[in-house]
Amino acid sequence: MADKANPIRFGILGCAEIARKVSRAIALSPNATIVAVGSRSLDKAVRFIAANGLPPATRAHGSYDAVLDDRDVDAVHVPLPTSLHVRWAVAAAERGKHVLLEKPTALCAADLDRILDACKSCGVQFMDTTMWMHHPRTARMRELLSDPDRFGQLRTIHSIFSFHGDSDFLQNDIRVKPDLDGLGVLGDTGWYCIRSILWAADYELPKTAIAHHGLAKNEAGVNLSCGSTLLWDDGKVATFYCSFLAHLTMELSVAGTRGTLHLSDFVIPFEETHAKFRFATDSGFAELQTGWKPLPSEHDVSTELPQEALMIQEFSSLAGSIRDSSCKPDQKWPTIARKTQLVLDAVKASIEKGFEPVNITS
Amino acid sequence: MADKANPIRFGILGCAEIARKVSRAIALSPNATIVAVGSRSLDKAVRFIAANGLPPATRAHGSYDAVLDDRDVDAVHVPLPTSLHVRWAVAAAERGKHVLLEKPTALCAADLDRILDACKSCGVQFMDTTMWMHHPRTARMRELLSDPDRFGQLRTIHSIFSFHGDSDFLQNDIRVKPDLDGLGVLGDTGWYCIRSILWAADYELPKTAIAHHGLAKNEAGVNLSCGSTLLWDDGKVATFYCSFLAHLTMELSVAGTRGTLHLSDFVIPFEETHAKFRFATDSGFAELQTGWKPLPSEHDVSTELPQEALMIQEFSSLAGSIRDSSCKPDQKWPTIARKTQLVLDAVKASIEKGFEPVNITS
Repeated sequence: MADKANPIRFGILGCAEIARKVSRAIALSPNATIVAVGSRSLDKAVRFIAANGLPPATRAHGSYDAVLDDRDVDAVHVPLPTSLHVRWAVAAAERGKHVLLEKPTALCAADLDRILDACKSCGVQFMDTTMWMHHPRTARMRELLSDPDRFGQLRTIHSIFSFHGDSDFLQNDIRVKPDLDGLGVLGDTGWYCIRSILWAADYELPKTAIAHHGLAKNEAGVNLSCGSTLLWDDGKVATFYCSFLAHLTMELSVAGTRGTLHLSDFVIPFEETHAKFRFATDSGFAELQTGWKPLPSEHDVSTELPQEALMIQEFSSLAGSIRDSSCKPDQKWPTIARKTQLVLDAVKASIEKGFEPVNITS
Repeated sequence: MADKANPIRFGILGCAEIARKVSRAIALSPNATIVAVGSRSLDKAVRFIAANGLPPATRAHGSYDAVLDDRDVDAVHVPLPTSLHVRWAVAAAERGKHVLLEKPTALCAADLDRILDACKSCGVQFMDTTMWMHHPRTARMRELLSDPDRFGQLRTIHSIFSFHGDSDFLQNDIRVKPDLDGLGVLGDTGWYCIRSILWAADYELPKTAIAHHGLAKNEAGVNLSCGSTLLWDDGKVATFYCSFLAHLTMELSVAGTRGTLHLSDFVIPFEETHAKFRFATDSGFAELQTGWKPLPSEHDVSTELPQEALMIQEFSSLAGSIRDSSCKPDQKWPTIARKTQLVLDAVKASIEKGFEPVNITS
C-alpha cells in the first residue's frame, strides 16, 4: 500500500501553470511524493522546483524522455498541450509509468483510446485530472441523487462553466491555439460541463448531441464559446454552456421528479476547506404560492485535504495496489474519461455539421 | 391618486386558484380594493367570496359580463384560460375597465395585439401578472446588471423553471388542454423564463429563436417540457428550459464580461418577506486556483409587501393616474408583455418547424 514511508513517486512533464497546483497536491497527499520535473529546458525545470518549494532532492530533467527514463519515477503528471498527449502519455505507459493526464485527455476519442490501450496493456493506472470528482461534496451529492425517495428519477441537467479570458489569454493561451488545444473552450471548461452531466446521469452515455446555435470562434477557428443539448432515449435532457468570453460562472442544476440539486462552484469550490450545495426534495409552494414548502436545504461539506490532493491520494492508492498487490489497473477512471471524450467528440461533430444531431456511440 | 380612501376597485373574472392569491394581494395593496367576483355560476362566486375572506360587501355576479357591467368596477383581473383572453380582455377594455391579465397573455402575439389595441384605444391600463417584476429584489438586481463597472457587457443568460405535475395535473389541468391553454408549459413556466431573459437583456428583443431537441408533449400535442436558444446580433446568447415533468426548479444565471448574477427562486421567492441573490464582480481564482477571489457576495432584499401586492399597487397607481390626472395608459408594461409573447411565438414556431431557427420580428 502506498503511504508516507512508501509513496508513489511522481514526475511532472512540463512546467505548466497547472503543474504548480498539482505539485502542491502531491506534497499534501499522504501517499505520494514528487521526485522529478522535466522540461525541454533544464533551466526551466530547475527554476520550477525552486519557485514552487519542491523538495531539494527533486531532480530536474532537461527533457520529457529523461523523466520517463528516471527509474525512481512511478507515475507522471502530463500537463502538456492536448496535441502532445498521445505521444507522451503512450510513451509514459510504455515505460511503466502510471499516467495522470490533464483534461481534455485527447483531441478525440480515437486518440484517447491509444492512450488507454497503452495503459491497459502496460498495466499502469490512468486517470484524468478532473479534480472535483474527488471532493467529498461530490460523494455527498451522489448519495442524494441516488436516493429515489429524495430525488426520484433524473429528468434534466444544466451546466455552465465560463470565465472571461483577457486579451492576453485570447491572443496567446495554448487553449485558443488550433495546433495546441484545437478543442478550445469545449475541451477546457466544456470538459467539466460534460463530465458534470455524465456524473449526474450516473455515467449513462447520452444517445445524441445537438450543438446550440450562437457559438463564437476566433480567427483560427477555435471555439471560444459554445453549448449543446444532450439527449437520452428515456427522455432525459441536458444542456450546457461553456465560454471564454463571460465572467467566471460555474452552475450545475440537476432535477429529478422529486428533487433538485444546485451549486454554483462545481469545478473549483469557492473556498478550499469546505463546499456548499442546495438540495430540495418534494418542494412545492406554500398556501397561495407565497413561498416554497419545504424550503431547499443548504449543505456544507468540509474537507481536510483540497480536492486535488484527494485526487492524488486516490490515484496513488490505485497505483500502489498495482505495485504492491499486483492488482490490475482500475477501469472506472479510464471509462469515465472515455465517455467524456465521446460526448465531446459528438458535440464537436454537431458543430461541424451545422448543429445537426449526432449519435453518440461507444 | 389612488389610495386607501379612493382606491382602484377590482372585479375578478372567474374563480381560478390564482385569483385567490390576487384577491389577497388586492386586500394588501394600499390603493386597491376588491368589489366584485364573477363566475359562470353565481353560487361559485358567492362561495369564492366567503372562502377567501373577501369583504362582505363584495358583489357576486353570475357571469363575466355582469362584472364588466358593474359601474363600481374600475379594473378587472382576468385569470381565465388563455383561449378566452382575447374575448374577455377586449370586452373589459371596451367597457372602460383596466386589464390585469394572467400570463400567458394570449395564444399568439397577434391575439395579444387585439387586446393591447383595445386597451390603448379605450384608454385603459394593461399589465400582465408577472409578479416577480415588482419585487424590490428585481430592481436591486437591475441596478447591478446596469452597472458597467460591476457587470460589464451582457454575454449570456440561462433560465430554468420546472415543476413536477402530478398525474391529476397532467390529466386535468387547463394548462395541458389544447383547447384551453394550447401553449402548455411554454406559456406557463416558459413565459417566466422568456421574461427573465428579456429582463436581463434590458428588453432588447433577440433576433432568433431555435428550440431545443428533446421536448416532451402529451397525447393531445401540448408541450410538457421544452427549451430554446435565443440569439442577438451582437453575440449574446440565452437558453431556457421549462417543464411540467421535473421537480420545482427556478434558476436564473446572467453573466456579463465582468460579473455574474445567480438566483434559485426568481419567480416565487423561497420566503415572502425577503429574497436573496448572489452577485460576483471580477472574480477570478485564488493563487493556485484553490478557491475564488473575490468571493461572490450574497444579497438579501426585504420587502414589506409581497411581490403580488406590489404589482397591484403599481397597476392601481397607473390606473389612478388615468382616472385622476387624465394620464394616458403607461406603455412599458404592454410593451414588455408583447415582447415576451413575440419570443414565445418564435419558440413555438421553431418547435413546429422541427427546431429550425426562426426570426423574431416586432
